[in-house]
Amino acid sequence: MPLLSNSNKYCYVTDMDVRDYELDCEKIVNNANYLHYMEHTRHRFCEEAGLSFTDMLERGIVTVVRKIEIEYLSSLRSGDRFVSCLRIERKGARFIFYQDIMRPGGEICAKGVVTIVSLCEGKLARGEELAKAFGKYIK
Amino acid sequence: MPLLSNSNKYCYVTDMDVRDYELDCEKIVNNANYLHYMEHTRHRFCEEAGLSFTDMLERGIVTVVRKIEIEYLSSLRSGDRFVSCLRIERKGARFIFYQDIMRPGGEICAKGVVTIVSLCEGKLARGEELAKAFGKYIK
Amino acid sequence: MPLLSNSNKYCYVTDMDVRDYELDCEKIVNNANYLHYMEHTRHRFCEEAGLSFTDMLERGIVTVVRKIEIEYLSSLRSGDRFVSCLRIERKGARFIFYQDIMRPGGEICAKGVVTIVSLCEGKLARGEELAKAFGKYIK
Amino acid sequence: MPLLSNSNKYCYVTDMDVRDYELDCEKIVNNANYLHYMEHTRHRFCEEAGLSFTDMLERGIVTVVRKIEIEYLSSLRSGDRFVSCLRIERKGARFIFYQDIMRPGGEICAKGVVTIVSLCEGKLARGEELAKAFGKYIK
Repeated sequence: MPLLSNSNKYCYVTDMDVRDYELDCEKIVNNANYLHYMEHTRHRFCEEAGLSFTDMLERGIVTVVRKIEIEYLSSLRSGDRFVSCLRIERKGARFIFYQDIMRPGGEICAKGVVTIVSLCEGKLARGEELAKAFGKYIK
Repeated sequence: MPLLSNSNKYCYVTDMDVRDYELDCEKIVNNANYLHYMEHTRHRFCEEAGLSFTDMLERGIVTVVRKIEIEYLSSLRSGDRFVSCLRIERKGARFIFYQDIMRPGGEICAKGVVTIVSLCEGKLARGEELAKAFGKYIK
Repeated sequence: MPLLSNSNKYCYVTDMDVRDYELDCEKIVNNANYLHYMEHTRHRFCEEAGLSFTDMLERGIVTVVRKIEIEYLSSLRSGDRFVSCLRIERKGARFIFYQDIMRPGGEICAKGVVTIVSLCEGKLARGEELAKAFGKYIK
Repeated sequence: MPLLSNSNKYCYVTDMDVRDYELDCEKIVNNANYLHYMEHTRHRFCEEAGLSFTDMLERGIVTVVRKIEIEYLSSLRSGDRFVSCLRIERKGARFIFYQDIMRPGGEICAKGVVTIVSLCEGKLARGEELAKAFGKYIK
């Protein structure tokens, strides 16, 4: 299982299956749905880290996506299962999620780099609450 | 109207309105939906260029997204209308769409760079048919 | 234009175009997207009636869908434009939207009956504010 | 676990979790997403029955949704897990899926009745292939 040999580079790994309504008429998962997969992975990770997305909103922590770079390497199709992995870095106020979506055998389907910032009353916040919650996961 | 002064840099401009089901619980348009807006803009553009997405599929031209870079600058919200603009470059087999989503007054909401390739029997094609269709729009 | 001859039975008519990401791998609009079309039509109607969905939320009027019946008669496909029409009835606390999606020539693609109620602090409200806003449209 | 006591009335049960991009600005799952949940449940069921949606398409069996009736009883929210259950009846050419979405404790969130037909060259087919695949599940 090739995945295990690399697993130390990720701090969170989860799995999902393709849903047929996510396909488009080329019979491959539509490009926008990979962002959905990656967001759902981040939210599952946040929940594991003890600060769910709902918790954040209730505590007035508004996080927004500032930038996404995504490469599509191998299209997911009907019936596919996949593994969604992430690791996280902090650069000042920005939290950078490196996210890979891969087949169970290890082939990468999509690679994303997602930059998140947190806002306080509409202005960029320093992200101390996020840093505290994610502390043990940040390299 | 600031838009007009820049309009020569785009080869296609269309407009859309935010649909409330595109919002997430932060009351802003979810990040993935901007990829939908940009895809729909490309498809409207293709139709104008005389080669609709359906035409392509029928002629065996399979186009896939290879890479997307997107910056989110100002969140779209309920009730917002926006202008979606693109220009196109060719780099060998790759077609690069530079896509801006902006408010009617000219404020940029999101900037995307979307790389498309065409496939022939699953392998990278040289894209001559696309180049022919898009010829007069490519700088 | 056959549509006009029937237009007196609707109190609101708008038009939209199919977006290719709404298709599924059968190359027809996925069944769930018709609910999106119908919701967007209701929200455009509310805005015209002077009480946008956002206004409602800000005034603490939470509206929820209680029931939907939808018949699919003719599948929408890539490139299709369609007309989305509604009329509204009130039955006590319930507002019933009769919604037709049709081709420009008048062929019905989908017929929906959507029951909306409004909630006040999580409990069923009498809907007086909605009734006031929709008053002149209710038969 | 109340679910078990009723489980004999369903022929297929699966579970899913709410994804935050499925919420709308009322912080509840948008009405259209329940149709997605129900479709995904049917497709998982078809796979278990030995005739996946992709298999169908490859064998020229085109199934389309003809009618949906859905009642929304209790809104799903961020963080919720749910159980999605179905049973199936055949009425001539029509296959009727009775689908419940419920919380793990048994509370019903949504009840759907989904009518599917199969088409052969665009015309209503008698559905013998589906009947064969679903035979042992049909009451």
